[in-house]
Formats: sequence, structure tokens, C-alpha cells
Amino acid sequence: MRSPLRAPRLTERQENPARIEAFSDGVFSVAITLLVIDIHVPSFPHAPTNLEMWVALRDIGSKLLIFAVSFVTIGFFWIGHHLIFWSIERSNRILMWSNLLFLFPIVCLPAATALVGEYPSNGTAATVYVAIVLAAALLLDIVWWYASSNGLVSSEMARENVRSQHRRLIVVTLILLVAACIAPIFPRFAIGAMLVAILCIIATTGSRMLVD
Amino acid sequence: MRSPLRAPRLTERQENPARIEAFSDGVFSVAITLLVIDIHVPSFPHAPTNLEMWVALRDIGSKLLIFAVSFVTIGFFWIGHHLIFWSIERSNRILMWSNLLFLFPIVCLPAATALVGEYPSNGTAATVYVAIVLAAALLLDIVWWYASSNGLVSSEMARENVRSQHRRLIVVTLILLVAACIAPIFPRFAIGAMLVAILCIIATTGSRMLVD
Amino acid sequence: MRSPLRAPRLTERQENPARIEAFSDGVFSVAITLLVIDIHVPSFPHAPTNLEMWVALRDIGSKLLIFAVSFVTIGFFWIGHHLIFWSIERSNRILMWSNLLFLFPIVCLPAATALVGEYPSNGTAATVYVAIVLAAALLLDIVWWYASSNGLVSSEMARENVRSQHRRLIVVTLILLVAACIAPIFPRFAIGAMLVAILCIIATTGSRMLVD
Amino acid sequence: MRSPLRAPRLTERQENPARIEAFSDGVFSVAITLLVIDIHVPSFPHAPTNLEMWVALRDIGSKLLIFAVSFVTIGFFWIGHHLIFWSIERSNRILMWSNLLFLFPIVCLPAATALVGEYPSNGTAATVYVAIVLAAALLLDIVWWYASSNGLVSSEMARENVRSQHRRLIVVTLILLVAACIAPIFPRFAIGAMLVAILCIIATTGSRMLVD
Repeated sequence: MRSPLRAPRLTERQENPARIEAFSDGVFSVAITLLVIDIHVPSFPHAPTNLEMWVALRDIGSKLLIFAVSFVTIGFFWIGHHLIFWSIERSNRILMWSNLLFLFPIVCLPAATALVGEYPSNGTAATVYVAIVLAAALLLDIVWWYASSNGLVSSEMARENVRSQHRRLIVVTLILLVAACIAPIFPRFAIGAMLVAILCIIATTGSRMLVD
Repeated sequence: MRSPLRAPRLTERQENPARIEAFSDGVFSVAITLLVIDIHVPSFPHAPTNLEMWVALRDIGSKLLIFAVSFVTIGFFWIGHHLIFWSIERSNRILMWSNLLFLFPIVCLPAATALVGEYPSNGTAATVYVAIVLAAALLLDIVWWYASSNGLVSSEMARENVRSQHRRLIVVTLILLVAACIAPIFPRFAIGAMLVAILCIIATTGSRMLVD
Repeated sequence: MRSPLRAPRLTERQENPARIEAFSDGVFSVAITLLVIDIHVPSFPHAPTNLEMWVALRDIGSKLLIFAVSFVTIGFFWIGHHLIFWSIERSNRILMWSNLLFLFPIVCLPAATALVGEYPSNGTAATVYVAIVLAAALLLDIVWWYASSNGLVSSEMARENVRSQHRRLIVVTLILLVAACIAPIFPRFAIGAMLVAILCIIATTGSRMLVD
Repeated sequence: MRSPLRAPRLTERQENPARIEAFSDGVFSVAITLLVIDIHVPSFPHAPTNLEMWVALRDIGSKLLIFAVSFVTIGFFWIGHHLIFWSIERSNRILMWSNLLFLFPIVCLPAATALVGEYPSNGTAATVYVAIVLAAALLLDIVWWYASSNGLVSSEMARENVRSQHRRLIVVTLILLVAACIAPIFPRFAIGAMLVAILCIIATTGSRMLVD
């Protein structure tokens, strides 16, 4: 029980961020699946014809659109989180709390999606939505900044490579900041700009891995 | 920290698709459990007798039926996903995004199930439902095609065996395409054909593993 | 790529039931958390006093009670599933499908819980509830029977020990069968008997592990 | 099959609390994401202006506040659970059931959050909320007490270190007991005191790990 062989094993389990990843994966997967919960079945006064159903479904098109945007956004953050935790080899409580804080806007996103889906042309709804995405980008940046400046990252080599990830996060953050500012006046344009920024980041990073 | 022994360890973690599997498992399990969320408790003007409750439950029978069909469908895709990722040994961002795209129709299935459950004889509802299942089959095929043609699959031997999985996916895709075409006119028949196709695939593959 | 050293590694991953466990854990955890979703906040015509709130919460007491019963029931099946998969070392598609079938009544349980919570004295509701629990017990038994009679279980020694698990499952199944028969006439008694049977099984097995 | 080399492997899997952690992570992540489900989109008689939307969102501010408090509380218990299971190396059925019991108040928290969000100034709602958090703290304490006094913890060294975790849990429990007593009269103050206590614990423990 007290053998020196046991002790490092415990330390290894302690430092392992595997459970942070498992918990985060759980939150991401529930949040991404809950997006759809707000898409209610349309109701009709009588049995609808095929055409009436098409019209009703087309009317909830804006909800489906913002739902798809949120799906891509959560997917983007999941992959960003994935990339960052690839190079994190040790965890501590501050990392856990930073990670939990980052998950807060992710958990809020289904409610914000429902809000924008209901009022797609409302400036306040779009501002709240973009602000939540902005908060997620900022907090993921903080998670990475904390981990890399406190020796939790595996090697200098990896840090060098992840620095480009950091740079990408800052670019996203700046674009989101601008989008949040114009959202009260041009709600649709702000959400579109947010999506374009995310898609650009995705396209430019391609299939490259952390350690090329 | 800079030791060459550390670096491959990171690369190994990077290439490991374990977290894609964990995230996908999360999405599958939430989606399969959310199917039931649309089955609301029947309401009565007074305390119902046993017989009245039976009648009320029988009336929501079509919902239970399509719920069971969706359960089998999600189970089918989960097992297909499982089989494909068994032979995938490395991941990259394109694989992650293809996998996320594949999860999009899976996440949409609970809402489509609710739609068909509410309007079981509506052609548009059935078409949307079959189209979503078709999209899932196509996208899973793309995930497999990308992984196998970009060297992410573990060995030639495994690829040989998984080729039959690919063939099965194409057969399902074709049947679903036909089902989607007839769905606007024969909604119940189209969903039935979809289910029969899935059950045939399940029955013919039996308990065989990838490497027989 | 074709090295003989790779091949067993793939086979090992294939035979590993770890992802079945992960998916099942996901379904169990979503189902057990969704139980609570039917407990709606009571509404009042005006700001309620402390006493009025107590009365309102006491009125939804039957919902809380059946929710607690379902929590214990899902916990019971999770632990049973856990014990069985401890000794399963290999998986195949039939095991996957048996496991999926077993998860079907688990996924139905939140809806059945809401039904009994709404109509606690209705015989049909109680029969449906007990029948779903009975189906789960039967199907878990089938999973175990299939695994143990097809060489998927780790060792004879373990099988000897898990035989007692099998016997316990049969006892539960029989008690549930009786409970399902009396449920139409004595709904509360049937659910009570079900709970007592589960608690007895829990109490008699104590903290013993599979391999004592 | 009967080789002595296999047997310890099974025992190792049996004693491994990894699946308890996976199931608990699932419950925690579903519960923390379901918190948001009660935040409904405000409805308006006509298309709202930006200002009207701000006013409507500010009105649901108390819901957002208690949602944030519950988010921190569930995060606190997740990290506490994480720290405790770091040093638990073996599991048995009593540990599993204690852990399930601990998850019961966690699962109840979204419903209690909705209750306090709807009636933030009601004493009974606040009492129920604080009592549920108190139950979680007590039951996590019992999980730790059982594990440490039954040889499931990895080493004396770790126990020494986790003793401070135990002490912290008792302090939280006592503060929550006081908060539960004053909640019927000062509901907002009781929940505030609960939050302050949790934040103090978080601040004083900092980034220290179990084995310093």
C-alpha cells in the first residue's frame, strides 16, 4: 500500500486531464443535441397536406438555419478544445475551473439559439448570441494561456505549434468583438460574419495536426 | 520536457481518435434518449379508468412505433460508426469535421421522429425523415471513404474487410434514395422499406467481426 | 502497415467492449437525469407564501416518489450491466444489438415514470411501468446468457461467480412477472413489490465482488 | 482461458472505478446542461424592439443568476468528486450505491434551480434548494468516508492529503446546514451564503493537488 511504486501511479492519475476531457465531451455532446429541442413540431387545425407541411417547415427555416450555425460553432469549439487538450499533459484545479468557466457559454448556447431562432431580426437577440460565442472564444484562450504559461503543456515543440492555434483564437476573438458591436443594428449580418470567420479559420487550418 | 521520448507520446495522443469516439458516443446516447421526450403523458378530464388509459396509450401507438424505428436506426448508425472507427487508427481535422457533419442528421432525428409521430400519414414528414436517414448514411460513407483513402486506416487487411461494410453502406444509401422518392406519396411504405432495409443489413451481417 | 504486430492490436480493439460500455453509460446517465424533467415548477395565481409552496410541493409528492423509485431502478440496472460487462472480454455485433435492445426499456423508463407520476392510482399506468422494468430484466438476462454461452466471458472462474448474478436476475424477473400481473388491480402495491424485490437483491448481494 | 494470468486482469478491471467515474461524468454533464432548459424564450405580442428585448431578458435575470449559481455548485461537486476518485483505486458495490445516492441530489438540482428561478423570494423554494445542496455535500462526504475506511484508497500518503478535502467538506456541510435553517426567512441571503461558502473553499484550495 505504501510502496513507492504506487505513489507515482496516483500522481500520474492526478495529473492526467482525461476526466476533464470526458466531462467536457459530455457537456459538448449534450449541448449540441439539445440545440434541436426547441424545434417544435408545427401544429395544424386539421390533417395537413404535403404542401401545407412544406410551407410550415419552410416557416421554421430561420430556426433550422441558426440551429445549423450553432451546430458548426459548438463543433468548432469542441475541435479547438480537443486541439488544446492534446498538448496539455497535466491538470490542476485552476485548469479545471478555467475549463468549467469556458463550458458556461457553451451550455448557454442552446438557449441563445432558441432566442435568435424565434426573433432572427432582433438586434438584442443577435448581440446576446454573438456575445456568448465571444465569451467562449475568450475563455478558451484563457484556458490555453494558463496551461501554456504554467508548465502544464507537454513540450516546447508542441507549444511552438499550438502558438498558431493561439493566434487563430485571437483573430476569432477580434472578429467576434466587431460582430458583437454591429449586432444591435445589423443582427443577421453580425451572425453571418461570425459564421464566415469560423469557416475561414476551419478552411485555413485544413487537416494539419498540432505537430506537423 | 524536450526529451524525444515525450514527443511521440504527444503524437500518439494526437492521432488517437478516442476522443472523437467519446464525443460521438455522447451525441448518439443523448439523441437516442431524447427520442422519448416527445411522448407526452395523455391528459384526461377526470381520473381515467384502466380501459380509458389503454385506449389513450393505443392512440399514441404511432408515436411509439416511429420512436422504435428511430431507436433501431440510431442503433444501426452507432454500430456502423463503431465498426468504421475500429479500423481507424489516426485522426486529423478533416476526419473530425466529416464526423461532426455525420452527427448533424443524427442530432436532427429526434425532431424528425416527433414530426412523423405527430403526422404519420403526411408525405412531407416522411420525406424529411427518410432524407435525414439518407444524409446520415451518405455522410458515414464519406467519413469511411475519406479515412480509407487518406491512410488513416490501420492495415490493408482491415481495409479489405471493411470494404464489405462500405458495400453495405452503399446498398443502404440506394434503398434510402428510393424510399425518399416514394415517401411523398406512400409515407408509411417508405419508412417501412427503410426499416426493412436496415433489418436486412443487420440480419445478413450477423455476428461477424471486421477481421473474420 | 501489414506487419503482424499491428493486426492483433486491431483485433484487440475490436474485441474490446469498452465502447459498448461508454455508450451504455451515456444512455444510463441521460435517462437517469431526464427522469426529473417531468417535475414542473408549480404555478400560483400570486406570489406564494412559504406554506402555500410546501402544500404545492407536497402535492407533487407522488411524482417525486416514483422518480426516486425509477432512480433506484435505473441505478440497479446500471450496476447489473456493470457487473456483467466486467466479465465480458470480447464483443461482437449480436452482443451489441442485444445490449441496444436492453437499453430500449431503459430509455422508455422516463416516459413511464412521468405516466405513473401523473396517474399513480391507475392500473394500466402501473402495468406499463412494471412491464418495462420486466423487459429490462429479461433483456439483461439475455445479454448475459448470450455472452456466457458464446465464449465472450473472460474465464470459467468468473462465469462460476457470475452464475449467482444470473440467478439473481431470474429471481427479479419472476417477482416482476407477478408484479406485472397484479398491477392492473393493485397498482401501488405492484410498484412497491417491485421496489422491495430490487432492494432485497441489493441488500443480499452487499459489497461482494464478482470474484470473491 | 483458465490461466492464472487472466484472473488478475479481470480483478483489475473489477476493482477499477473508471466506469463509476464515466457514469458520474455523464450525469454531471447532463445535469449541468439541463440547467438552461428552463430558461424559456420570452414571448411578445408583436415583433419586439431591441429595447423591449433587453427589458424582457433583464426580467428573466433572476433565473440566469440562480442558473449561474447552480452551474458553479455542480462544478464544485464535480471537482470534489474528481479529487476523491483520484485517490480511490478499488471499487465495490457499496461504493457504487453510495456514489449513486450522491448523484440523486445532483440530478434534482435542475428542478430546484427552476423552482428558485421562478420564485426567488420564496422561503420554501430556497430551503428546498439549499437542502438539496446540503444532501449532496453530506453524501459526497459519506462516499469519501466509506472509501477511506474500507481500504479502497490508494495509499496512506494520499489519505493524509485528502484528509484536508474531508475537512473542507465538513466545513461546507456546516455552513449549508446554517443556510438551510435561515432559508425559510431570508431566502436570498441563504443562497448567497451558500455561494460565498463554495467560493471561499475554491479560493482557499487554489491550484494545489492532492499530493503536493
